Formats: sequence, C-alpha cells, structure tokens
Amino acid sequence: MKNVFGTNLTLTLFGESHGAAVGGVLDGLAPGIPVDREAIEGKLALRRPQGAISTARVETDDFEIVSGVFENKTTGTPLCLLIRNQNVRSGDYAATKDLPRPGHADYTAFVKYHGFADYRGGGHFSGRVTAALVALGAIVQTALEKRGVRIGTHIARLAGIPDRAFADYDADITLLADRSFPALDGGAVAKMQAAIVKAKEEGDSVGGVLETAVTGLPAGVGEPWFDTLEGLLSHGLFSIPGVKGVEFGDGFAIADLRGSEANDAFVPANGGVATATNRNGGINGGISNGMPLLFRCAVKPTPSIAKTQKTVDLSTGNAAELSLVGRHDPAIVHRARAVVDAVTALVLADALAGRYGTDWLRGDE
Amino acid sequence: MKNVFGTNLTLTLFGESHGAAVGGVLDGLAPGIPVDREAIEGKLALRRPQGAISTARVETDDFEIVSGVFENKTTGTPLCLLIRNQNVRSGDYAATKDLPRPGHADYTAFVKYHGFADYRGGGHFSGRVTAALVALGAIVQTALEKRGVRIGTHIARLAGIPDRAFADYDADITLLADRSFPALDGGAVAKMQAAIVKAKEEGDSVGGVLETAVTGLPAGVGEPWFDTLEGLLSHGLFSIPGVKGVEFGDGFAIADLRGSEANDAFVPANGGVATATNRNGGINGGISNGMPLLFRCAVKPTPSIAKTQKTVDLSTGNAAELSLVGRHDPAIVHRARAVVDAVTALVLADALAGRYGTDWLRGDE
Amino acid sequence: MKNVFGTNLTLTLFGESHGAAVGGVLDGLAPGIPVDREAIEGKLALRRPQGAISTARVETDDFEIVSGVFENKTTGTPLCLLIRNQNVRSGDYAATKDLPRPGHADYTAFVKYHGFADYRGGGHFSGRVTAALVALGAIVQTALEKRGVRIGTHIARLAGIPDRAFADYDADITLLADRSFPALDGGAVAKMQAAIVKAKEEGDSVGGVLETAVTGLPAGVGEPWFDTLEGLLSHGLFSIPGVKGVEFGDGFAIADLRGSEANDAFVPANGGVATATNRNGGINGGISNGMPLLFRCAVKPTPSIAKTQKTVDLSTGNAAELSLVGRHDPAIVHRARAVVDAVTALVLADALAGRYGTDWLRGDE
Amino acid sequence: MKNVFGTNLTLTLFGESHGAAVGGVLDGLAPGIPVDREAIEGKLALRRPQGAISTARVETDDFEIVSGVFENKTTGTPLCLLIRNQNVRSGDYAATKDLPRPGHADYTAFVKYHGFADYRGGGHFSGRVTAALVALGAIVQTALEKRGVRIGTHIARLAGIPDRAFADYDADITLLADRSFPALDGGAVAKMQAAIVKAKEEGDSVGGVLETAVTGLPAGVGEPWFDTLEGLLSHGLFSIPGVKGVEFGDGFAIADLRGSEANDAFVPANGGVATATNRNGGINGGISNGMPLLFRCAVKPTPSIAKTQKTVDLSTGNAAELSLVGRHDPAIVHRARAVVDAVTALVLADALAGRYGTDWLRGDE
Repeated sequence: MKNVFGTNLTLTLFGESHGAAVGGVLDGLAPGIPVDREAIEGKLALRRPQGAISTARVETDDFEIVSGVFENKTTGTPLCLLIRNQNVRSGDYAATKDLPRPGHADYTAFVKYHGFADYRGGGHFSGRVTAALVALGAIVQTALEKRGVRIGTHIARLAGIPDRAFADYDADITLLADRSFPALDGGAVAKMQAAIVKAKEEGDSVGGVLETAVTGLPAGVGEPWFDTLEGLLSHGLFSIPGVKGVEFGDGFAIADLRGSEANDAFVPANGGVATATNRNGGINGGISNGMPLLFRCAVKPTPSIAKTQKTVDLSTGNAAELSLVGRHDPAIVHRARAVVDAVTALVLADALAGRYGTDWLRGDE
Repeated sequence: MKNVFGTNLTLTLFGESHGAAVGGVLDGLAPGIPVDREAIEGKLALRRPQGAISTARVETDDFEIVSGVFENKTTGTPLCLLIRNQNVRSGDYAATKDLPRPGHADYTAFVKYHGFADYRGGGHFSGRVTAALVALGAIVQTALEKRGVRIGTHIARLAGIPDRAFADYDADITLLADRSFPALDGGAVAKMQAAIVKAKEEGDSVGGVLETAVTGLPAGVGEPWFDTLEGLLSHGLFSIPGVKGVEFGDGFAIADLRGSEANDAFVPANGGVATATNRNGGINGGISNGMPLLFRCAVKPTPSIAKTQKTVDLSTGNAAELSLVGRHDPAIVHRARAVVDAVTALVLADALAGRYGTDWLRGDE
Repeated sequence: MKNVFGTNLTLTLFGESHGAAVGGVLDGLAPGIPVDREAIEGKLALRRPQGAISTARVETDDFEIVSGVFENKTTGTPLCLLIRNQNVRSGDYAATKDLPRPGHADYTAFVKYHGFADYRGGGHFSGRVTAALVALGAIVQTALEKRGVRIGTHIARLAGIPDRAFADYDADITLLADRSFPALDGGAVAKMQAAIVKAKEEGDSVGGVLETAVTGLPAGVGEPWFDTLEGLLSHGLFSIPGVKGVEFGDGFAIADLRGSEANDAFVPANGGVATATNRNGGINGGISNGMPLLFRCAVKPTPSIAKTQKTVDLSTGNAAELSLVGRHDPAIVHRARAVVDAVTALVLADALAGRYGTDWLRGDE
Repeated sequence: MKNVFGTNLTLTLFGESHGAAVGGVLDGLAPGIPVDREAIEGKLALRRPQGAISTARVETDDFEIVSGVFENKTTGTPLCLLIRNQNVRSGDYAATKDLPRPGHADYTAFVKYHGFADYRGGGHFSGRVTAALVALGAIVQTALEKRGVRIGTHIARLAGIPDRAFADYDADITLLADRSFPALDGGAVAKMQAAIVKAKEEGDSVGGVLETAVTGLPAGVGEPWFDTLEGLLSHGLFSIPGVKGVEFGDGFAIADLRGSEANDAFVPANGGVATATNRNGGINGGISNGMPLLFRCAVKPTPSIAKTQKTVDLSTGNAAELSLVGRHDPAIVHRARAVVDAVTALVLADALAGRYGTDWLRGDE
C-alpha cells in the first residue's frame, strides 16, 4: 500500500519541500472530536526551527483544514489538512541537482523514480512533510488525552550528553508538554544546545536518542502475528527522517540480562495486575500490559552539513565534491520529538479503533 | 488487518503450541518457483532445538504442503503449509493456567481474548508458530537466492560474548549457511554455548543480539511514507518472540556521531554508484541504495526459566509464586536466527513484487 | 492483497479441487464465539450435490478445525479449517489438459500462471473451494444470528421459472433455513428441478437468479468512498463461480423509474425511522438504513456440459473439440445459495467489527 | 480501510459539497507519466452540468495539482489534486437540515456520524466529490490509452429509451470520446434529452443504464478469491452515487440461457486465442481473457426532485413533508459516465500495477 499507513485510521501524506504545499488525509477518525486550532499550532511550534540551533528557513506553518471538520468538530469523513510552502528558495538546489547529498534520499529517489522525482530540497523525502504529520497527529493526540492516553517524549541523549531518565511518568509528561527543547533535566538543556551550536560552527551536525513514554493505554492492545505494538510503532517511527534504531523497554540492553532479571514480575495492583519492573516497556507478546509504554528512537546527525563531502555526479558518473550552501539544521533531534509524538498518537489511535470500534476515540458513549 | 502481513506477498500464520498443528498461508508467490523439500528441511533444522543448549521438546517438524504447489513448483495460488504438533505434554500447563508467566504473553492474551485463548504453552503466541514461518520463508529465501539476493544472520553477541563483525559479506553469508550455531568466529561458539549451559544449570536463561546482512538487493526498493525498508522489516522482526530492539547500519551508535562521520560518501563503482562506508546499513530515506543491507535485532533472554518467580493468580487476584517445570530453552538466540532470515526473505520478496510485479521472483522472463 | 478478503475480519482461501485439501483461514473473529460442528455440517449439507439434479461427485466434506478454537469456542486467534479431498478422479482431466473448457477459468489461469497452475478440475478456481468458504461462513452466520442479524437466500428464478418474492422477510428466512432446494413457493420447486433434469438429459445446464434478504442489520454500516455496503458485498459475491451480475433493491429495474417512484419515503416507526417502500434495498448512500437488505445475484448456467464444444488446443494453437466426460452439475444455483449466505455473513461481520470493535460479534459486553 | 481504495494504486477522496474544496490523493502512480491539464479539463467537461438537462449549479472545476507532479510529469510520489468549491449557496439547505431527503444519504449519514456530518448538500456524499475522482481518473485513463487500454461508456438506456449496442468496439470508443451526451445512436440523443426535460418540467427525474467497453486489456489480470476483475470493478462502481446494479457480459440475461449458449467457445486468433462470442464480458473465472471487457451499471433516477415528498423530522421524530428548492439534476446518467470511466481506469491500472510492477503504466522500459 506504499504511502498509506494504518488499518482503521489511515494517513496518507503528500507534498514536496519546494512544491505548492505539504499535507495529509486522515481517514477513519471518529465523528464529533473537537478540533482545536491552538492545540495544532502548539504542536507545530514544537517542530518549528528554533533560533541559533536550527535552520534559517522558518515557515509560519499556516494550515488549512480542507475537509472533514464541520462546526469545529470532526465529521467522521476524511480530514484533509494543507500547509502551503512559503519560504522557498529553490535556486539553492538547482546547481547541485546531479550531486546526491550523502546520507540523504537524493540518490535512492533518483534510482527509484527514474529521475522524475522533485529533487528540490529532498522533495517528498523532506522533513518538511512532517509538518503535516505533526498537525494531523495533534488532533489525534488531543483526543487521546481526553480518553486518558498521554504521550511524552524527551531527548534521552544528544551529542553524547545524557538527560535524566523518566521518573514519575505522568508528571514528566506534563513537564515536557511545555518545553520546546524537551530535556527533563534543566541542566542538560544548556549543554545540549551548546553542542549543537558548536557543531554548526564547525559546519557539522549532531544526533541523539529520543525516549517516549505513554501512560493510560489499556491492556490488550496489539496483535501477535504481525501487528504487535512494537511492530506497528516501529513501522511508523522508522518513517521519520533520520531514525535508524527503535527499541522498547530495556531494548538492546535487555539482550545482556539473565531471564530472571529481564522478566517483569506480576504483582497485584489496585484490584488489577501490574508489573514490579518495566523492562519490557509495557508490552508482552506484542500486546500492551497496562504499564507505561516506553521506547527509544535513535536519530542520526542531520545529513545536511556545510563541510565539503564526496559524492558522484549522476550526469557523468564521475566522482565529485559537494558543499551545501542552503539553510540547514545542525540537529533535528529536538524538532523530531513532535513527529515521534504524532506517529505514536496515530498508531495507538488506529489500534484502539480496531479493538473498540470507530467511535472509541470520541468516547462519549 | 491483524494477523495478515504483507501487501503483494501476504502471510497469515495460524496454530497453537498444543493444538492440532501450526501453519501458514502464503499468497502472492510467483507461479513456477521450485519448491525443494530439502531446502525447507534444512532451514527447519536450523530452528530446531539442539541438545544441551535447548529445550528437551524436540519436534520432527514434518510438514505438509496442503495447496499451492503442483509438480514441485508453485502454482501462483495460495500456498498452505501445515506442521502437526506431536510431542505435546499439555499436562505441564494445566496446573499453572491461572498463573501468568512473567515476560510471556500469558497475561496480555488473557486480557485481550477475555480468557478464551488457548493458554497451553503460550498457545498462538508460542515460538512453535515460527516453525511454519521458517518453512514458508525457506521457499522464498531459496527463490531470492536464485535472483541474487542472499541473506545471512549471525549471533553478534550472546550473554555479553561478542562474535566478530561481518567482513566479506558474501563469503560470510556462505559460511553461515552451514552453521547450526551461527557465529562467524569459531572461537566464540564454544564460549557462547558454555554461557548457555551455565545459565541452564542455574535455572536461568540468556539473550543476545542477531545481526543480518543482505547482499544483491537492487537499489530503489522501499517507500518514503510509511513503507520504508526499515519500517517494513522492523514490523516483521518485532513479531519474533523476544525481539525488543531493531537497528539499521550503525543504529543507536550513529546517534553519537557527527554528520560528517555518519554520512556515507558516494563513490563511483563498476559503472554505478556505491558508498565508501555503510553506516546507514544500505538504506537512505527508507529506500535501498544498492549496498548490503545491515541490521541487528536485540533478543531478550528466554522468559521461561526454572527459578521461582512472582506472579498473580488470575482466579483470585492474589500474589502467587510460579516454578516452571516444563521443557524450556535457556537461550533462543541461535534458533531465532532462522526466523529472522525467514522474515527478512518475506519482507524483501513482498517489496520486490510490488516494484517489479508478481512474476519477478521466478525471474525467467 | 490478491486472495485475502476483509479488513478487520479477513479470510484467505486455499486449496485445489484435486489437491490434498481445500481450506481457509479466518482472522479477526471475536474470542468466545461458540463453534457448533452441527451448524457447520448443516450449511455444508445445503451446498452438497443433491441426487439427480447434481454431479455424481459427492464429498463427505469432513472438516477439521486446525486452530483458533479451544474448548468449543473461538480463541480470537486465526481459525484454520481444512476439508480433505477424497472422491478425486484426476484421470478425468489429464486427457483434456491442453483443451480449455469454454466458460471456465482454464484458459485465463493458463495465461495468468504461465502454465504452472494445477489444471485438474479447475484447481484453485473450482467450486470445491467454496466448501471451505461455506464452513467458515457458517461460524460467522451463526454468531450473527445470535446478534439478531439473519440472512436468507432463495432462487428467485431458475431456467426462467420464477419463485414468489419475499413477503414476510423474517418468516421467509426461517422457512428457507430448512429447505435444501431454496424456493419460497413450493410449487416452483418441482418445476425448477424438472428443468434441471431436462437440461442434464440434453447434455446441457441451466442458470438462475438468487435473491438474498438480511434482517436485523443496524443502520449506519458502510462507508461512502469506497467501502459502500453494495461495493463490499458485490466484491465478495462476484468471487462466487458463475456470478455475473449483482443488484440491490430494485436493481436494474430502478433505472426505468421516475425519482418520485424510486425514492423510499421516510416514515416514523417504533420511535425510530423506517422507509415506506424498500426499492433501495436497505441501503442509502452506501450505508445501511435499518430496513432489510435485499439483493440479487445472476448465476450463469454451469459451464461444464456434456455437449461437444469448440476450443483451442493450447499445445498447438489449433482449433479443437471438447467433450467433457467428468461428473458435472447441470445447475449450481441451488448449491450456490449456501455460498452467497456465507459471503454475506463474512462481509457484514467485517463491517460490523470495523464499526463496533473486535468483540461486537460475541456480544456479551 | 474505509475510504482508501486500491492496493498498489490507491485513491483517497476527501471534501464536502459546501466545504472549502473536494479533492483526492492518488498514490502508487508510476513516475514519469505526462500530466496534461487539457486532458483533465476535457474529462471534467464531460461530467459538468449541461444546460437545460442539468442543475443550474455550474462549477468551473478549476483544479490545482498540489503535489506529485514536477515539470509536467508524475514524480511517483502521492499526487494530491484539489478543486475549490465556488458556486455554493448553503442557505438552500439550512432550512431542511432535519428533514432527510428520501433516496439520499442524509438519514444514514446522520445515524452513522451521530449528527456530526456536514449535512449541506449531502456533504461528503455529494456527487460533487466525483469531480476530483474524474480529474484523477483522467490522468490514469490517458496513461492507459498510451499503453493501448481504451475505455468508453455510453448510455445503453435512459428513461426506457434504448441506445444501439456496441458494434465495432474501438470505433465506438473513439466516437464516444467526443460526445458530451454519450449515446452511440444519434437518434437516441434527442429522445433521451426530451425525456429528461419532460421529467424536469414535472418536478421529477429519470434514471438509466450505462454500458462500458474496454479494449486492449491483456489476458491474465484479476485474482480468483476475492480480487476478481468483476469484484474489483463492482467495488469501485457501486461507490458512484445512484448505482444500484452492476453486471458483466450478458449479466442477468445469462441466467436464462443454457450452458451451451452461455459458454464462449475458444477459437484461434492471430496466433493466440479469442472467443467466438463474448457473453462473459471478457472475464473467465474473474480474470481477463483478452476479449473486450463489457459491463453495465444501473443508475437510479436522481433522488433530488421538486415534487413534495414524505420524510421524518429528525429533531422531533414526527412525519413531515419536504419540497426541495435547491438546484438539482433531472438526470445524472450522462454525467455519471465520466465517473464510470474514471473508476474503471483506476481499478484496471491498480490491477495492472500489481501484476506487472509499479512502472508498467509509464511503459517505456
């Protein structure tokens, strides 16, 4: 199905970095969900470039809801949202159109689309497309919160500088909602931002690890073969430009434990069942167990850098050098956080709709 | 779509650990692909328990091809394969039916299926179901090899003991094909197996990391939003019991690099384009770039252990203790390797069929 | 997705007429649904050949439930059902393997599968595969009846001989449940059967029209673009061998009415809304309106006939003649009725699961 | 998947009759397909209201291609097309918002979406949405024609007045391409249009039957269970507002034939195989046989009529009367023709992409 994601709640993204607009269509949303423009703008602001640590291309991200909303509530029919591109300087790219940027999709898009893809600024592969994803995700995330499902993401590590771990999940999720640079440890913020500025000054870029917690997800969501919660979430998360690893609970570290350490013991809790530890990240056998969901995404350093790089001239097949003169992010980790939240909201809402029916997300019945 | 995986080549698995059989239906295979029983048996042997380092439950894995094969070749219509369960001792499980095993799907299945799931030996969540997956994957993997796409997986780490990295990908894939305990470094085999035996003697289990390489995959396979190669592969890989992390190329380590280090420079090669390094694991922007695919799966220690564990009695809600007396694996990492190969083969064949059409996998046109 | 049907409740059929077995996997069924072997056998009996008016190949249709049922109830995991082929006389087909039967799929299967399809008795295209469909549909239809959704199909016309129309839908559905030759007008039965016998004696076959009513379906099921109830049902119904037309309500006859005649006026009814007439077959805008669903399928005369027919020898490309000597049905209309019921049950259960969630079909919550 | 249609080539429609716009996203198109604005405008003109026989609401149908086209060719990434609504007089509908129009989706949408749907002019159920479908279909139909697959639809019957049957398929398809009122028999045009005008004068409407032929479709396209060509096409065609029946080849009339009459004999032709007759409409066993595809859609009379009708006031539950004062079509059969062509093009292109790969539609390799 290529570029359609989801089963009961489906998302189709469209648009190119330097085309008319980016946007998306969300189908399968319950009718009657309030659509709050401020909530959408709030999430878009978290994704927007931030001063010295970001690209100089700043878009206002004015969005238009083209369909699927009537009198400020979802209708239940497909919701199309459009964000026009404004601050476009395509001339930046024409000179280097035959020189694929290392680490980018330029070369693979050239091969896949036989040279017909819009090469300007990465075209459909541009992180710009995530603006639409974040805006649509905001509608879903807001609705999930009303149903008690809360999502929060922090920078667990950036340029090797660690944040503190989640402590009180719900308090930390509240704390993160207000932070445009989402570290839990206030002290880490300055260090991380300094590392970004330093990389930028050196014509380079840095990466990091994002860690996400979800509270309030009911037990019993996910499928064994093959729509596990891990499988569904990772499928979505790996679409985010730059994500090269996804792990749940203790993730790769669990591979070095003994079974007696890795197993989360079950304990009675509030008339139900909880686990004493949460090394499996709230998922057993691919299905939520009622504990907080916990996962991490590895985000590689932004591939667009000022330093001269080696490439191949696709018009001649010869070796070439490339010096990027466009406006680039020395780090996208902090901006990618809003995208991770959006993907998480969409995947969970889809799984919940499959289990409890179309109208579950509205919740008033 | 719950338990159906794939778009053009779809797999549906069925069966329970202590039911009549496990099996699967593979739909969308090109007609005319040779089906070699020995090749299937060879892959099943790699998955089968191996003496002291494995469970005492050994199944012969006799399989029946129920449909979709005529005169030893695929017909192009759905291929159903069945493996009867034989060595079943369900009495092992009846006594502990209300005591969910920590780290297993017992509790989440109980919640999800409202107590109606077959609880014996994990039912449909059992690793036993992977026998059908491996058998069906073997047909696809054999066909891919004839088209030049080769897959190999080794134990990169087990109980903290490292194997050497891939050196010459193709030579190493050949080497692994013959090894029932798939480490590249002969010296690591004995150490890893000793660690497994030791864990078993202590009533415990160990985990590890599997690393997979794929050579011969054409550039241009994968989709931007959301069917990236990483997304498709991870979706399948996380279904494998015990997998808690998936990373591509340098994976989580790439998050600590600078962009100038992480970007794989393009270089002219054999009239085409290659990359000087392969830190992105053969994938840019979600699409294959023609370099070897490289990824790793974190496999947690087997949750079934002899040591006494804490759990909750689901019939009373009270705390309880659980001592497993069944037959269990002190490690499944080496056995999971065959499952990783099978999932990889299925995902790649599906993506290739989408790009090049139904008949591509047969290849004689 | 080729041979997988459904979104939340999916069915994959497999098997060939003269292979080991036919069968299917049903995924997405609610857990806890009673599985009654007698109900399945009852539906299979309706599909089975009936004496003089049917083929001499009679199968006992012994079925095995391979997975997905535990202690006589569905588990919620994939349900695989298998029916072994027993009364197989493949020799009937070897002599005519290069002579495609007119009206059959022999030639199109030859082209599509490049000569690799199992040609014996139509292989995977055989009506034999519908035995599995009927058996799986029986489980779903029985569960739907417990939720108040009832399905009944009669032969509206056979060889030009008409049955009476539905009068009291629910009474007529009850009446049809017991009739192996499903005409509402007892007098039509003898005439229709005589027409079948006459056609058989002349080495020929007859067709007819099946009409189906569904009561108890809630209003609000179906989607505008493109999963209308008409679209979903017709998608399934056209898979039934021999179906060449599907119409809802007045169907083709509505094309000759004026709008003032074709529009079903809304009237208050039992505190809700009903329509005064039902010319639209219980569907407005693709969505159920709470009135009985009503639709008809045109079933062509069985293509297998004893009369000599013209064909082409695929091994030479020359014109040839074909005289079928196997065992054939002079009519399948009465047998196809059980298949129409099964497809209807599956499509409606899928749509209801999408709207109300996985567990709706069980209904006890 | 609700409102997403197709497997390899997917279409998602969005928009409401009186909202900002209608539009659609087409994903999976081969890269490099020329996008000709005039060809799109030509198809939109065929769908547009035509003077006395149509509604007075005339839209210019100015469309914007938002994404997926670069330098006048498809990029291979999702193509979003938008048509702004201009001639909107929503006041027409406010007064009757609680009075569902008989024969329309007003009542079913009210139930399905719990009163949250945009009720103005039918909202997302409006035929207005088909403008986007026709525009996107035009791109695909133009590309199919370059690959030799040609589609043509005529009004086989309107208000009981018959057109002549297809004679020379290819010549007739050429002839129809230029006719805004698509009857093959010039004499029928005046009679049909007079019947429309008469119905309008009487405050009423008429229906009809559309017949479609497709030439140049290769043999071997379609799947047995359940993606038959008939199933796929009917799934799409029943989404078109007003379609209540779909039949292939002789359709319902074939039910009254003998097998010896209904079977299309195979005959050698041009080094290949053809059939002597085409009563099965170019499809055997759900798969194309290389003969022209032939099918018919029953289109009911437009439900919007000026005559007073009975309905129910949804705000009170009481009986009510309704007199529509908006601008309505006394017939949509001739306009629906462009929609049938578009749906046919999309379904066939999807099936062809599945069989031959993504790039088949472009065709230059």
